[in-house]
Amino acid sequence: MRKDRAGNYFEDFRVGMRIRHATPRTLTEGDRSLYIGLTGSRTALCTAETNAQRLGFDRRPLEDLLVFNTAFGKTVPDISLNAVANLGYSDVRFLAPVYPGDTLTVETEILGLKENASRKTGVVYVRSTASNQLGLNVLTWIRWVMVHKRDPGAPCGEAVVPTLNASVPTERLPCGDYSARVREIGSMTGVSALWDDYAAGERIDHPGAMTVNESDHSIATRLYQNTAKAHFDGFAATARGTKRLVYGGHVMSICKALAYDGLENGLSILAINGGSHVNPTYAGDTIACSTMVLDKIDLGLGHIGGLRLRTIGVKNAAASSIAFPDAGGTRPIHPEHVVLDLDYTIAIPR
Amino acid sequence: MRKDRAGNYFEDFRVGMRIRHATPRTLTEGDRSLYIGLTGSRTALCTAETNAQRLGFDRRPLEDLLVFNTAFGKTVPDISLNAVANLGYSDVRFLAPVYPGDTLTVETEILGLKENASRKTGVVYVRSTASNQLGLNVLTWIRWVMVHKRDPGAPCGEAVVPTLNASVPTERLPCGDYSARVREIGSMTGVSALWDDYAAGERIDHPGAMTVNESDHSIATRLYQNTAKAHFDGFAATARGTKRLVYGGHVMSICKALAYDGLENGLSILAINGGSHVNPTYAGDTIACSTMVLDKIDLGLGHIGGLRLRTIGVKNAAASSIAFPDAGGTRPIHPEHVVLDLDYTIAIPR
Amino acid sequence: MRKDRAGNYFEDFRVGMRIRHATPRTLTEGDRSLYIGLTGSRTALCTAETNAQRLGFDRRPLEDLLVFNTAFGKTVPDISLNAVANLGYSDVRFLAPVYPGDTLTVETEILGLKENASRKTGVVYVRSTASNQLGLNVLTWIRWVMVHKRDPGAPCGEAVVPTLNASVPTERLPCGDYSARVREIGSMTGVSALWDDYAAGERIDHPGAMTVNESDHSIATRLYQNTAKAHFDGFAATARGTKRLVYGGHVMSICKALAYDGLENGLSILAINGGSHVNPTYAGDTIACSTMVLDKIDLGLGHIGGLRLRTIGVKNAAASSIAFPDAGGTRPIHPEHVVLDLDYTIAIPR
Repeated sequence: MRKDRAGNYFEDFRVGMRIRHATPRTLTEGDRSLYIGLTGSRTALCTAETNAQRLGFDRRPLEDLLVFNTAFGKTVPDISLNAVANLGYSDVRFLAPVYPGDTLTVETEILGLKENASRKTGVVYVRSTASNQLGLNVLTWIRWVMVHKRDPGAPCGEAVVPTLNASVPTERLPCGDYSARVREIGSMTGVSALWDDYAAGERIDHPGAMTVNESDHSIATRLYQNTAKAHFDGFAATARGTKRLVYGGHVMSICKALAYDGLENGLSILAINGGSHVNPTYAGDTIACSTMVLDKIDLGLGHIGGLRLRTIGVKNAAASSIAFPDAGGTRPIHPEHVVLDLDYTIAIPR
Repeated sequence: MRKDRAGNYFEDFRVGMRIRHATPRTLTEGDRSLYIGLTGSRTALCTAETNAQRLGFDRRPLEDLLVFNTAFGKTVPDISLNAVANLGYSDVRFLAPVYPGDTLTVETEILGLKENASRKTGVVYVRSTASNQLGLNVLTWIRWVMVHKRDPGAPCGEAVVPTLNASVPTERLPCGDYSARVREIGSMTGVSALWDDYAAGERIDHPGAMTVNESDHSIATRLYQNTAKAHFDGFAATARGTKRLVYGGHVMSICKALAYDGLENGLSILAINGGSHVNPTYAGDTIACSTMVLDKIDLGLGHIGGLRLRTIGVKNAAASSIAFPDAGGTRPIHPEHVVLDLDYTIAIPR
Repeated sequence: MRKDRAGNYFEDFRVGMRIRHATPRTLTEGDRSLYIGLTGSRTALCTAETNAQRLGFDRRPLEDLLVFNTAFGKTVPDISLNAVANLGYSDVRFLAPVYPGDTLTVETEILGLKENASRKTGVVYVRSTASNQLGLNVLTWIRWVMVHKRDPGAPCGEAVVPTLNASVPTERLPCGDYSARVREIGSMTGVSALWDDYAAGERIDHPGAMTVNESDHSIATRLYQNTAKAHFDGFAATARGTKRLVYGGHVMSICKALAYDGLENGLSILAINGGSHVNPTYAGDTIACSTMVLDKIDLGLGHIGGLRLRTIGVKNAAASSIAFPDAGGTRPIHPEHVVLDLDYTIAIPR
């Protein structure tokens, strides 16, 4: 029996194939502490037990992107160990809060496969879902990723490309069990801006900036038990004339933490409509970001509303220099210093 | 409503103004683990549950400077986001132990204001106090900080400078509820030196030295949710011809950890009488320190005494090279390699 | 009373001397999170509470080498503060699982002493044992270390060299209380290979590689409260024309984490038969490793078997380049890029 597991190549996938990823992971307060230390996260709901209780929770849930990155990491050995690039996300929905002590199990279904013209690679479309120890789904997402073929000559079936929504439809947004008490959040953050105080088209240049250190992103990516070699093997990177790549999910977490200033009363991420890691980030790069309010979503609830946001992250440039090119259904053209273009929807009291 | 919160400038403060800082923070065992990993702290009371119980506690409290740095970090967005420099501390008192699970809320009162002759900056004197989820005050401190004016021409009222004590008077030292059992500490540390074994004027050159890595201080400062840009924005620092500055509180934590060797049976910090960050520390600098016993304080208790200590920290120099210039009520003259001059009082069994 | 504790020198040790190390340490989920973040550990039993319960445990124990490194760190101030080099390990046995909340106390007995011909150094042989808060021994190990003499002229007694076994005899392997349920591990890891699927002489080149960052090893070594100056004092290292040395236990942890791929169903380490840190590792080095199955051990149990493994770690070289020189009772000759040669026995379901 061979022990050198090399991950799946493009021709190993079949549409409809289901993979249960190894192994389940229990998240704890220790993981949260490390997440705060690595990203500077300050989300009100997650920063204090007293905040969570005043906002109507029994205790404070874990940070959304800590959950996302951990669940994502589980899929790497089976889906993207032989990836060229992670091309995009769609229909990412945060279905239920995850608490310290909860154990995440992640499964993936192959939704689509499309060999590239070069026949050296292909695009794999997958839906992954994380559930907790009670079997409750807590997070689901689609991503598509370009994966090497083991053998360019291997025959591949006809292309199957799933239809992807440009955004999560309002009726599918998971609105949680927020109580009317969430309106008290302003007394915790010291900021009064709620749903009514944001306008579509409004732009917020977040004041902070964060330099990524080699050890920061290495620790974060190991914490997520993400084993993609591009993040860890500096010897191989140097041999290829490049450097270790910062995991894109770490860049998302940093932008999310920087975006606290200006979006202080955001409760949680409901969904990620789409997103892409536009250019690579390396240790030593300094990340800044700007957010545009794309849309205000009436969730049909009296006490919370949705804000559809587009956060663009750049490296080694000021937030004020960021342009918001029209996505318009096609992949926008970004300059080289753009590292992240994320379209997501948050809940905020109204 | 503007979302780009830029912090307060000198002319925004008024004497008597009170600020409740955002947001409360729950500290956990995860934060302690990270604190030990980042600083090398080995305090007997905090290192083991069994130690704490043998010393008369129900469980082990969190490290003093983890509490201080977390509480301090909360004040940054409102007080010192536009600071030129943190000038000094006074009357810092550790009023009650903080345990994992406790939530800290921090409030600040503006004690004094003094515009500088240049009219570009002014000194803000503040008293900040952290309380736990039961409303019990656990830490209070005065600091004064030089803050930029937004508009040099802005009129400022007459100078108000609070009177500051050179040290915390003995009768105001919080002596806690130490039981007679604390005398057992020597059996945990393997060191027999107690209060009687220290003499005023005695000098201890601590044997260790610690190089600060870029990621170490970044993680520590983020853990404290301290958002001061000088610590994080390497791109802006390079543009100004400088480097990211190590947060002074991290240097204090390192010196405190190094000072374990020679002060093994210290129970906790009762107060910081005064202190200043004399010169900046940058990643790559190696910290060493030496301590002089300034005074032995009879707390009027049979089982513990106070040691008033002065710890001077240096970068890239041996502890044995440290001079102890007389403070004498004026700011001592230090050579460039001195980074910290801290005057504090610890409890030690007698 | 002198406060500058400089550790023991060779002539301070006596055969039969017993040292109780300061201070006990409570390990927590926070320490585990940091361990995962620093090493990338993915052991099934330790990664999820649900895994542990399905494998017949009440809850998940702490990672073996987190326990080893923490216990080892406790011995440094008394045994190896003045060490030239840690020469080897023998008869390391993991006697009982350690859980979050457990407190470790470590004691050492001096087994042997042998002055070197130069009279400047000598070899100290010690047995150290860690016990938990109930007094149960959880880990025991022999190591030998070359230690400086304070005074080359100091008289030393006749050499006493303990007899060391080449490996832990099967009857002394601690086999734990594994239940028959451990056979379910394959459904967690997604890998079916159990004891029967490994063969003596089989070689596994582990696919991962991990670059060690300065902050990674510094944080890890501080987490273990290991105070050896060689790991921390960059200023002194530069003055000697060298660099900070990565703690060998961190290299062991990285190799163990990399060796997950190919040994996924390993339950825990039963014993380390022998091992040595062959060459130094510095920050920036990339670690890879290969494992040879030395022996298959019938533990006389129906549900688990032992695999005696030899894992060789290298820096800045491919796992496939590793040679396995015959140990044959003598110290094997290794090229300069070899950093670790570890002979250990794991439990795996059969």
